[in-house]
Order: sequence, then structure tokens, then C-alpha cells
Amino acid sequence: MNYYQLKLCGLKRKLPIVPLGPKLKIASFNLLGDTQMVQAIAQKMAQKLKRTDFDVLVGPEVKVVPLIQELSRLLKHKRYVILRKSIKGYMIKPISTDSKPSLVLNGPDFEYLKGKKAVIVDDVISTGRTMEVVCKLLNTAQSKTVAIFTALKQGDREFSFTSPFYFFGQLPLFKR
Amino acid sequence: MNYYQLKLCGLKRKLPIVPLGPKLKIASFNLLGDTQMVQAIAQKMAQKLKRTDFDVLVGPEVKVVPLIQELSRLLKHKRYVILRKSIKGYMIKPISTDSKPSLVLNGPDFEYLKGKKAVIVDDVISTGRTMEVVCKLLNTAQSKTVAIFTALKQGDREFSFTSPFYFFGQLPLFKR
Repeated sequence: MNYYQLKLCGLKRKLPIVPLGPKLKIASFNLLGDTQMVQAIAQKMAQKLKRTDFDVLVGPEVKVVPLIQELSRLLKHKRYVILRKSIKGYMIKPISTDSKPSLVLNGPDFEYLKGKKAVIVDDVISTGRTMEVVCKLLNTAQSKTVAIFTALKQGDREFSFTSPFYFFGQLPLFKR
Repeated sequence: MNYYQLKLCGLKRKLPIVPLGPKLKIASFNLLGDTQMVQAIAQKMAQKLKRTDFDVLVGPEVKVVPLIQELSRLLKHKRYVILRKSIKGYMIKPISTDSKPSLVLNGPDFEYLKGKKAVIVDDVISTGRTMEVVCKLLNTAQSKTVAIFTALKQGDREFSFTSPFYFFGQLPLFKR
């Protein structure tokens, strides 16, 4: 097993390099279970978010969930919005997109987002496809995306989002 | 839409009553997005956990993730373990059970749990099937389950776990 040494928000992590298809390997970054890394990233992001005029944090399940919980706590937000990958039993009038990846917004969250200024948060941005779907859903909900925050940017792709985009570290892609 | 009024850890929530099959309805409880409820439950659980001799918090994805992150922060644990519902690209030598629901433990977490005293945390216990699978996986990893904590118990079922079981509120089942 090969590893990539990541330095992020004052912490070091040894990330396993795993295959992602026949011609590509990535350094695998996982916030689920890493209390310390979640807290370190949340501290950094919260500093920047304190100077941002916005109402609600939004992100796609699963790996960014602990980070958004911690950010909401630090920023004293009572509520945040998590987009699910499929329709769940607890949902009421869910709204989904026909794009890939599929993401679903619960009806009450859809109503809640209307007219609100949102900041989208994710752990890693790579192709940007997930981010596009999140933006689309927020647009459908008549919410304005005022900024996009990711912990890491993977690869060299440049993005041209209409909102300011911030990332706090980078990950290489390994071509075979 | 009918609602159920929940009082839990000093907070009130209006839970939508949703169908779960042709003969059953449940009050739908969702921690994902509820910063305030996550913090309130974590405070209560942390008080009890401070008197429990254990090493690591373990839980199944997704809805309990923010609660376990917050508990780990309060208890100053650097790491916790989330069981996934399927094998993910980032995993190394994942271990899964053939039971339903299917749950998967990442290889490094499997190694980490060996010989450790675990507390299992979940948001709601209903049939107890998920809990059984979690216990089984921890057993396979040679980890000792010292306690089971859930925010809510749904329905009247009595459980006979070999470890002490604590819940902090109850939800009815609605038969049609």
C-alpha cells in the first residue's frame, strides 16, 4: 500500500492511495471518524464564514456531515441542510434532480431554503459534478448560493462557479 | 399531514407521521440538519458516558453521524468509527456481514477496534436488527461492547442485549 502525506489545517494524515478505475488512483481522504480533523477544518472555515453574509450551510451526504454539524455549532446555526443520495422514508414531498449524481432535497428543507443565502460545503471537489447538482437544487429552491467551501481540491481542474470558491488544501491525482 | 409532538433532552420537535409499509406509520425523527437537537442529546449522553469505562464510539451511517462527531468532541476522542451500508472506494480490506441490514467496517477501523472497549450509539432503535449487526461486527473485530446508547426507542419491544442499554426518549408506533 502506498500513502500520500497530507498536511491540512495544521494536521498531518497518511492517506492510502487507492484505485478509482483502471487508469486513475487517488489519495483517499475520509472525515467520517476523524474528530480532530473535522474540528481543525471547521475552525479555519468558520473564521472565513464569520466574514460572509449568509443564512444556511448546505452539503451533500455523507462524508461532509460531521464538518457541517461542527461548523453550524461554531456559527450558532440551529439548522443546516443535508442533501441525500436517494429518497428516504422520512421525507415529505422530496425534490430531486435527474442529473448524475442524484441528490434529493426533503420538502421541508426545500421550503426552508426559499429566499435564503446559502453556503455550500463539501469535503473534496474533484470533477465538480456533485457541486453542479447542489447548485442546481439550490437554484430550484430559490436559494442564492453566496459561496462554496471545500476542505480539499483534488486534481488541477479550474472551476468557474458564479459564487466565490474557497478550498483549504489540495490532493494530487495519480495517473497510471 | 399529522404530527407527533416529541420532547427530548429539553427540546420540542413536531415530527411528521409517515407511512412505513401498508399497516404501519412512524413519527419521523431526523438528526441530519438539527444542530440544536444534536447538541442537546450529546450533552445528556456525554454526562452518562463520562462515568463509563470505554475507548471508542461506534455507530452505523448516516443519521447518527453528527451526534457521534459531537460526542467525540465533548469527550475529547480523536477518533470514532462509522459503519457504512456498502463497500466504498476509499476502503482497504473492508469487512462486512452477510446479515440484513448490510453493514461494512473499513479494514483500518477493524484493526483499530481490536481489543478496545466500544460504546455503540444510534439515533433510533426499533426492531433492534441494525444493533444486532453492529454487535456482530464488533465481536468479529474482537472489540468488547460495553454499552449501547440510542437517542430514542421506537415501539414497545424489550431488548435483551448482553451490554447495558440506555435510551433518552420514546416514540410510539402507529398501527393502521
